[in-house]
Amino acid sequence: MAKIELQENEVLNDLLGYDNMKIIQRNDMLNFSLDSVLLSAFVSIPAKAKKIVDFGTGNGPIPLFLSTRTSCPIIGIDVQKEAVLLAKRNMELNDVQHQIEIKEYDINEIEQYLPSQSVDVVVSNPPFFKVGEVKQQNANEYLTIARHEVLLTLETLVQKAAFVLDNNGYFAMVHRPDRLLDILTLLQKYRLEPKKLQLVYPKINGEANMILIESRKNGNSGMKILPPVIVHNEDGTYSDPILKLFKRL
Amino acid sequence: MAKIELQENEVLNDLLGYDNMKIIQRNDMLNFSLDSVLLSAFVSIPAKAKKIVDFGTGNGPIPLFLSTRTSCPIIGIDVQKEAVLLAKRNMELNDVQHQIEIKEYDINEIEQYLPSQSVDVVVSNPPFFKVGEVKQQNANEYLTIARHEVLLTLETLVQKAAFVLDNNGYFAMVHRPDRLLDILTLLQKYRLEPKKLQLVYPKINGEANMILIESRKNGNSGMKILPPVIVHNEDGTYSDPILKLFKRL
Repeated sequence: MAKIELQENEVLNDLLGYDNMKIIQRNDMLNFSLDSVLLSAFVSIPAKAKKIVDFGTGNGPIPLFLSTRTSCPIIGIDVQKEAVLLAKRNMELNDVQHQIEIKEYDINEIEQYLPSQSVDVVVSNPPFFKVGEVKQQNANEYLTIARHEVLLTLETLVQKAAFVLDNNGYFAMVHRPDRLLDILTLLQKYRLEPKKLQLVYPKINGEANMILIESRKNGNSGMKILPPVIVHNEDGTYSDPILKLFKRL
Repeated sequence: MAKIELQENEVLNDLLGYDNMKIIQRNDMLNFSLDSVLLSAFVSIPAKAKKIVDFGTGNGPIPLFLSTRTSCPIIGIDVQKEAVLLAKRNMELNDVQHQIEIKEYDINEIEQYLPSQSVDVVVSNPPFFKVGEVKQQNANEYLTIARHEVLLTLETLVQKAAFVLDNNGYFAMVHRPDRLLDILTLLQKYRLEPKKLQLVYPKINGEANMILIESRKNGNSGMKILPPVIVHNEDGTYSDPILKLFKRL
């Protein structure tokens, strides 16, 4: 592992499940959590994939996770300069900068950077909240942009994914259950046919708090609902499937 | 319990979970199963409800189950004369014929029988299969009509539910996961806003094989995904929540 120097507002964490991989996180930025871990395990990666793109990569957890599954080139894109700088350091820290490029791109203008139909897999853990939905948006600008649709709406995200994806390419996303209807409507509008849906329940007797959804560009209709992800046991400890994902079981 | 005489092709079964209730089933007709039990427990019944309608009642299991939850008048509708005759006998057998009317109506022509906005709750366990979807439709006409959309399409079902429902009325349905997209699209088309979705998984590590969905006429947007229903334990026995539903725990 490469040497690194940490700034005052930074911490070095294990990349969950991978003891030999580390990730620098900043206490004033969005830190990766279970949603990125689950999404990285959920997304389909065809053996012949030539390019994977992560829309809104933040400090780069999803490309790091994906690099454990594939040697396909990956581009992590973020609009925030500070996130891009941090993600680049994280790639160097884990010595994956030859597989993973980090780019300061605005997804709203993705046509300027990536040709249409040039990507096999798009993955995204996007801002979850509509502007104005949460009374007090995060005072911190990094968090506001990462969590609220101030710079990127759900519709634009879907539209741009459809633009860069090749025919039959995969688009996988993690989001909140209350946006499921919007998501399904938008995916179909942009001919990204929903194929796989997985619900994440914090406990077996609790409502779902996360959805994982994958669509294929111009795909056939017919969506499967995968086995549930139950995160915690009744006593609050992590369930066996989650511990397996973290390589703790 | 009233006295009954069984025909040669009939059997008398317990209404699952209710030892004091019985249901006559015919071996050449669709028999009720877990989907009707789950739907009857899932549907919202407001305390002030004045009329509940079951679209496609068959031999009447859903009205029987609902009669254990409410004293609101219930109408069970079916297009098949034989099913209607059997359902009527089942209501008399359980002495609920004063609460539950069984009618031989064609849902395609429901406007002839029920005024618009006259119903508070519509519930339906409709035909699951598109015509031509299953290679061999059931040779038996009773089963064909109950299981395939030969006499009633999904769109007409949704449209007619919207027609009879009062403002804010509930429409609850059980169906197959691969129709979820169609169902959500149609519900929204007819202003039945999806509010509650519940996935039924045969086992915790298996794909969902049933969905329960409830919408409200002209309701606000925002759909919850309820806790999963896991039907069987890993050893194949019924799970505790299902046993509770059957009043066996």
